[in-house]
Amino acid sequence: MKLKLISLPFEVRKHFVALSEEDSNDLGILSGDRVKISVRRKSIVAEIGIIPGMVKNGECAISRFLFPELEAEEGEVAEVSPVPKPRSFEHIKKKIMGGKLSKEEVYEIINDIASGSLNEVEIAAFVSASYMLKMDFDEIEWMTKAMIESGERITFERGTVVDKHSIGGVPGNKTALLVVPIIAASGLLIPKTASRAITSATGTADTFEVLANVNLTVDEIKEITERVGGVIAWSGATRLAPADDQLIHVEYILQMSPKPNMIASLLSKKASEGAKHVVIDIPVGEGSKVPSVDMGRELANNFVELGRRLGLNVFCALSYGGQPVGRAIGPALEAREALETLEKRKGSSSLIEKSLGLAGILLEMAGRSKNGYEDAKEIFTSGKAMEKMKEIIEAQGGEIFSYKDVPVGDKTYTLEAKKEGAIEAVYNKTLVKIARAAGAPKDKGAGVYIHKKRGEVVKEGDKILTIYAEKEWKLENAIDIALQEPAVEITGMILERFPSVRYLEGGT
Amino acid sequence: MKLKLISLPFEVRKHFVALSEEDSNDLGILSGDRVKISVRRKSIVAEIGIIPGMVKNGECAISRFLFPELEAEEGEVAEVSPVPKPRSFEHIKKKIMGGKLSKEEVYEIINDIASGSLNEVEIAAFVSASYMLKMDFDEIEWMTKAMIESGERITFERGTVVDKHSIGGVPGNKTALLVVPIIAASGLLIPKTASRAITSATGTADTFEVLANVNLTVDEIKEITERVGGVIAWSGATRLAPADDQLIHVEYILQMSPKPNMIASLLSKKASEGAKHVVIDIPVGEGSKVPSVDMGRELANNFVELGRRLGLNVFCALSYGGQPVGRAIGPALEAREALETLEKRKGSSSLIEKSLGLAGILLEMAGRSKNGYEDAKEIFTSGKAMEKMKEIIEAQGGEIFSYKDVPVGDKTYTLEAKKEGAIEAVYNKTLVKIARAAGAPKDKGAGVYIHKKRGEVVKEGDKILTIYAEKEWKLENAIDIALQEPAVEITGMILERFPSVRYLEGGT
Repeated sequence: MKLKLISLPFEVRKHFVALSEEDSNDLGILSGDRVKISVRRKSIVAEIGIIPGMVKNGECAISRFLFPELEAEEGEVAEVSPVPKPRSFEHIKKKIMGGKLSKEEVYEIINDIASGSLNEVEIAAFVSASYMLKMDFDEIEWMTKAMIESGERITFERGTVVDKHSIGGVPGNKTALLVVPIIAASGLLIPKTASRAITSATGTADTFEVLANVNLTVDEIKEITERVGGVIAWSGATRLAPADDQLIHVEYILQMSPKPNMIASLLSKKASEGAKHVVIDIPVGEGSKVPSVDMGRELANNFVELGRRLGLNVFCALSYGGQPVGRAIGPALEAREALETLEKRKGSSSLIEKSLGLAGILLEMAGRSKNGYEDAKEIFTSGKAMEKMKEIIEAQGGEIFSYKDVPVGDKTYTLEAKKEGAIEAVYNKTLVKIARAAGAPKDKGAGVYIHKKRGEVVKEGDKILTIYAEKEWKLENAIDIALQEPAVEITGMILERFPSVRYLEGGT
Repeated sequence: MKLKLISLPFEVRKHFVALSEEDSNDLGILSGDRVKISVRRKSIVAEIGIIPGMVKNGECAISRFLFPELEAEEGEVAEVSPVPKPRSFEHIKKKIMGGKLSKEEVYEIINDIASGSLNEVEIAAFVSASYMLKMDFDEIEWMTKAMIESGERITFERGTVVDKHSIGGVPGNKTALLVVPIIAASGLLIPKTASRAITSATGTADTFEVLANVNLTVDEIKEITERVGGVIAWSGATRLAPADDQLIHVEYILQMSPKPNMIASLLSKKASEGAKHVVIDIPVGEGSKVPSVDMGRELANNFVELGRRLGLNVFCALSYGGQPVGRAIGPALEAREALETLEKRKGSSSLIEKSLGLAGILLEMAGRSKNGYEDAKEIFTSGKAMEKMKEIIEAQGGEIFSYKDVPVGDKTYTLEAKKEGAIEAVYNKTLVKIARAAGAPKDKGAGVYIHKKRGEVVKEGDKILTIYAEKEWKLENAIDIALQEPAVEITGMILERFPSVRYLEGGT
């Protein structure tokens, strides 16, 4: 069918084309079907949307970004004809029916996800299949390799490249801001790519963005890492493993994070950035992603096995995830806490112990140390880590070099203890809810600071937590939540049966 | 957050709201998340779309159909706040994890699908779960009952209500146009609701629409059925089991038709229209939906069991589905063949035998006959069926009462045999492809007429099939397919090893 090309009045997604209802009927197609649009020798495949009243008969509205690809102008006539679903969708159905996918089938699925040839509803079927049926290790290996090959890769000319990643799920986890400068100061290379928050209060990329620019290209990551030893960059600004970004978007809508996809996603990014030794932090505990140590160990085995198949040296650290790491939650508050800890060479023990532990593992994995923890501690306490942090911030165009200069929200509210007792529980999920209501991660200065953590003793009137916000209405929303759903539970000392056990758990 | 209500410049779906990227960030929500929009005492829940450049900061664009529900005017200020996913989505995830759903959980899912509270990506997870994990009979029963209760229902004041339905998959299946008048002439009531084609060349509703109006309301279906004994109405024009229509849309995108959903869908419509005795036609054979007799029997048992649980008397007939029923494929061609057969009281044996068989089963089920086939044949050959057909057409506002007046496409092309032989195979899927390329079901006059069917002997130059179209370019597309993918296979007589066996199979 011949149709006149016009521009969509807005952007939906790139490969989207709107036709009139009548023309769609004439072509025998429905919303979600695909057409090939051809002008002279160029053609593209796009997905049909039928939006009553938007496009006239005889017209075909496409994204303005598609005109250059078609080498066509607005008003030109294109040949539009139906094309079948990509073959990769047949493979997804095969998986749903319980079949094992071949290497070629996995590659076709991942490549079609990366190129935008599969739509969200189709990707949802794939995510559901991985979520419920699992994949075997061959499939996971192929998926990871296909993800790596679908995007850009970094190759370093010199040095030993290592990286650290957390599977997430515990608030306040700003360890990357300590581990990266420690490792970079040791002489190893650490081109850390990090994500932004999706459902959490801040991601490592959001946090470091308070101090410096995290939107680095692959070339910038390479250049800065080779020059100063490390970066902290947002992975979304790169084209490292792009299929993964599409998958994560659908997983967000479905609130499902299938294990095969999660381990493939994480290691594909690390392999793409050229890392050879990777330590993975798996927070375990109530309110984190991994509730039990057994599940943590199983996941750790999966990471190690996938690493082996990719030629990556992987080590997993199970860490305590039952309450926040450190005391600050939210982009600026966390950046400030990390910088203050580096600067003063002391701070929250849960943050310092965990960071030194992870850095130490990397030093040992790369053969730089027999006692990694002690060597990491030496770099930290000597001030070399802080010096390196300043270099990294400067290399990434930042201008904040001291915790005293980190701006945080000026609207605050502090909750105080109404009775004497001991902190019985600190609820991760409620803290994240409060921090997000206060504006995090969008409002960088928003978040929560916890004055008292699990096991600590409080007297009536002691500060429990302070909410920070940039906007009054958001502060009020956050206070509402904090008053309705206690984030911290205090038990009367007399009723506390095992205070000593609780007191030691996890540190503060 | 306070936002000014504006109208969307086009309709996407009813519960869709567009915000600016910045306001969405401020609310901490992404595309696919939900917000509550409140104006004074009224509020609605809608799903967020973020379409860069379409909505300004401070604005909130909703469908114009939502203003009356909110009792608000354009330009008024609404309070917009995030709300979580409906609880029913948790139940879908439970199903995906292999759990059994409770009655309440099934009802919540179906009600949220019916009301538009679950989006396509979420429904895709549900469809994938039913497709891969099956449901047990309790779940199927609850799903069917929830579908029935989510919509309108017809209650007849008098008479015995019966119906006939085919699960589809075989082209040319216009038996409803014979069964409905035969049954109506017998004194039973048959308020047949039928679907339109989705992937086939025509649906019963498309076919009967050539002769009369099929867009009947529930009240019209009731009134006409009580007056003349039967109707053939499009189910999509009613509000019978509306959740089903949403499910079918997503199943179409996923090209999945999970068995639990299929049997629930079919019987929910029949129960909603008040039927007590239902005969289900299950075409079996290569190229149909059910390839083997064993699978047909299993499906039949499922229909009977679900019927028992709903208080419906269900009988299944396995029919031959390896080649088309009758000789015509496409809306007008099929309407003409059905009307010609009724008028002349003779025609294609496969069409007549199957229709009389199905009608006979209904007569016996309702206790009207000891030998249903013979009694149905008497109504057919006496001309009473044709008289009743005229009454039904007239009652539904039609004006075509003879096959001679049915208009078919005036652009035709006939394929002839290039050698002598016997028809070895007739390919359902290719015939449908040709008919759709020729314009069916949108162009009512388009389709295919098969002159020779399986087992028939042909001489060189004999007509094999004729393609009908309304538009020259569609005829050409259809010819291209017919020449590339033979719809009919002729084997040289000498090479044919079992011609007598083949010759008897399925009739013509």
